[in-house]
Amino acid sequence: MKKIIPILFAILSINSFAQNNSKEDSTIIKKIYDTSLLNGKSYEWLDYLSNQIGGRLSGSINAQKAVEWGEKELKALGIDKVWLQSVMVPKWTRGVTEFAYIETEPGKTTNVPICALGGSIPTPIGGIKAPIIEVKTFEDLRELGYDKVEGKIVFFNRPMQADLIETFKAYGGCVDQRYSGAAEAAKFGAIGVIVRSMNLRLDDYPHTGSMSYGDLTNNDKIPAAAISTNGANLLSSMLKLNPKIKFHMNMNCRTWKDVESFNVIGEITGSEFPNEYMVVGGHLDSWDLGDGSHDDGAGVVQSMEVLRLFKEIGYKPKRSIRVVLFMNEENGLRGGKKYAKVAKNKGENHVFALESDAGGFTPRGFSFDCDDANFEQVQSWKSLFEPYLVHYFAKGGSGADIGPLKKEGIVLAGLRPDSQRYFDYHHAKNDTFDAVNKRELELGAATMTSLMYLFDTYGVK
Amino acid sequence: MKKIIPILFAILSINSFAQNNSKEDSTIIKKIYDTSLLNGKSYEWLDYLSNQIGGRLSGSINAQKAVEWGEKELKALGIDKVWLQSVMVPKWTRGVTEFAYIETEPGKTTNVPICALGGSIPTPIGGIKAPIIEVKTFEDLRELGYDKVEGKIVFFNRPMQADLIETFKAYGGCVDQRYSGAAEAAKFGAIGVIVRSMNLRLDDYPHTGSMSYGDLTNNDKIPAAAISTNGANLLSSMLKLNPKIKFHMNMNCRTWKDVESFNVIGEITGSEFPNEYMVVGGHLDSWDLGDGSHDDGAGVVQSMEVLRLFKEIGYKPKRSIRVVLFMNEENGLRGGKKYAKVAKNKGENHVFALESDAGGFTPRGFSFDCDDANFEQVQSWKSLFEPYLVHYFAKGGSGADIGPLKKEGIVLAGLRPDSQRYFDYHHAKNDTFDAVNKRELELGAATMTSLMYLFDTYGVK
Repeated sequence: MKKIIPILFAILSINSFAQNNSKEDSTIIKKIYDTSLLNGKSYEWLDYLSNQIGGRLSGSINAQKAVEWGEKELKALGIDKVWLQSVMVPKWTRGVTEFAYIETEPGKTTNVPICALGGSIPTPIGGIKAPIIEVKTFEDLRELGYDKVEGKIVFFNRPMQADLIETFKAYGGCVDQRYSGAAEAAKFGAIGVIVRSMNLRLDDYPHTGSMSYGDLTNNDKIPAAAISTNGANLLSSMLKLNPKIKFHMNMNCRTWKDVESFNVIGEITGSEFPNEYMVVGGHLDSWDLGDGSHDDGAGVVQSMEVLRLFKEIGYKPKRSIRVVLFMNEENGLRGGKKYAKVAKNKGENHVFALESDAGGFTPRGFSFDCDDANFEQVQSWKSLFEPYLVHYFAKGGSGADIGPLKKEGIVLAGLRPDSQRYFDYHHAKNDTFDAVNKRELELGAATMTSLMYLFDTYGVK
Repeated sequence: MKKIIPILFAILSINSFAQNNSKEDSTIIKKIYDTSLLNGKSYEWLDYLSNQIGGRLSGSINAQKAVEWGEKELKALGIDKVWLQSVMVPKWTRGVTEFAYIETEPGKTTNVPICALGGSIPTPIGGIKAPIIEVKTFEDLRELGYDKVEGKIVFFNRPMQADLIETFKAYGGCVDQRYSGAAEAAKFGAIGVIVRSMNLRLDDYPHTGSMSYGDLTNNDKIPAAAISTNGANLLSSMLKLNPKIKFHMNMNCRTWKDVESFNVIGEITGSEFPNEYMVVGGHLDSWDLGDGSHDDGAGVVQSMEVLRLFKEIGYKPKRSIRVVLFMNEENGLRGGKKYAKVAKNKGENHVFALESDAGGFTPRGFSFDCDDANFEQVQSWKSLFEPYLVHYFAKGGSGADIGPLKKEGIVLAGLRPDSQRYFDYHHAKNDTFDAVNKRELELGAATMTSLMYLFDTYGVK
């Protein structure tokens, strides 16, 4: 019993903390949600970014347009500072739409939808055609060995695991095929790689994404593409019937010299602790196939909306709040690295950073990368989020762009929207504005603003 | 302190309850979710119901096809009993697509999308044209009075409240306009009614739904239609510019004699308590504009899936579990009333009923209509649902079809999916199969099956 009483007091003290603050906090948080839902700007911003600018791969003209748009819109908010932070980014272009077919015998072919993975080399002009061999893992490759792989195209066909509730875990269990498949297959003499799209749905969209050749020399690099999930199933069935079928793929993508681009940064300077910085952000670049509405247009406009909502409800933050629209998350993370490097060089004391980069779906909560004391504080705020059906507060990852800010004492957080539909759209042609629901987007923005408000009010432990 | 200790014991005893049972329960619940996600049948069933049968308004040929399909599919499951329960239902038909325009001056017209409300009388052949007057509430009507309303079309334009987090609450705050608008307006001499669609989104789909003329005589009834939200905003703006504009509407819907239809019922007879009945259901009828995938194809196939999952994982219920595919929820609730009446006449002891009729979206939890002891038991199961991000367990409504079963001691429950997108589709042309996500549907089915399993295992208090 003696052990139980202190636990009881601990429980009671958390409750009383919540009660002391909850009334004013509840009122402000309600104002935040009401304003976002009744008088929000996130959806209108996303409409412009998606439909007037569109896909904005690093180094593209659209990426530059998005930088200029972000700067203009932040300036229009009348916040204290807005500036661009120069950063050199990779420039890769897809070229003409890729083309592929399965050949059962000469002249008898079936087209399948593919797209080059970001960073892939092209095929030679006219494409390549070769026997194709299916594997599920890198271990499969090793078991086959050089003799059975040499001269062939390797087809990585491990599907995302449908029985995992959080789809990001299923993604994590598959994405090695996309990221390192080409590098691994090349070691066994493969001449090309086809990867099943990271998509839980059966459809006809190939999903692109970043890849790396690791330490391969230029001569050893081989072209790599994603195939739609329907295409992957078809190819797999046809291979079972006839292992001698050939695969043709033709891509003319290209990597250019790095070019200059920018992180877009806006700041409301803190009224009490101007030297404590809190960051909220998403990434301004996207893949080129769709218009990047979920990945990560949603995160960009939600982050901008955090500062706008503070202005709108008349809340003056104690700490300096920065919105950062990061450049080049998708294929290099140069923006995130640059922001952290400059912050470190200037000795800026970053205490908190929040990223939204998991789609504009109904917010379920946040994951945190922080110490126990701060996580405990977050737990004490849970009841404030209950009226908004925001219930998920867990330790775990935060966001790629804010990762480089990690240091002792900082709290990193990631918005966690409902993840069931995310990989239906992720890095594919159908990641477009119509796939985003206005209310879901606005609820996300309000949820982020509320967490920023609480960390600003109570500080980081 | 003395008062605290018993509370503490109460907390501990709930915890120990959960701990004693949680291991086996967790294992079974995991099996339920895995089977639904990896080897589910709900999505395939919905595909057939939506795309091969389609919209199935009570009394229609499609409704009859759906009855036959439901019976056949339940029989194929090899459960203990499958039967049809006869019920007389209303038959109302829309006729040719409705037509409406706003006339600013003779010959100068703008078409707007309308649809007749279910149960409305038609306009005279050729339609009606009259001045139109906007109101927000029945109180507005009373303030205008007979003189200002007589001979006009009344335009009810109260929008759903966007700042309510649960969209069903926003629906509840508006639906009186649709249900009773015509009856109220007719009392003040109106000759027709136009109602803003119950939709939080701005788009071009009119949303139908049930209406009642209350105690109006046949001679006093006036035609009533819904207008799309974009149409409503346009009409409202034009009225502000020129209150003298006229509105034309043309509909040839018709009410026929009642016809025979059926509830479709399947049963797994209980192994220990065969005379204790637990019902799971959705409604087989839908409106006629879309194919009724969310409302309520989803609830139908999820309910069927509950019994199939029990068979699939080899779980033999102690109590008799019935799936009921109710007929005529939308415009009469005859199926729900009939089922309850027969159950009462036969003296069947119904202890639990669960309905899914809020769309096939990600399940967030359940609402319950039950006493405190049963609600406490439900609370003790919360942690079992945590791995599936199911977190919402609240007192509140259950479902329209199971409502008539209400009596002392019964537990009524409703699945509560994420509600943000529901009214984008509800009763409109875009409530179609492509608006349902396979995983979200399957998670719902698993969540329902898990609750049924727990009530079957631990019984109703």
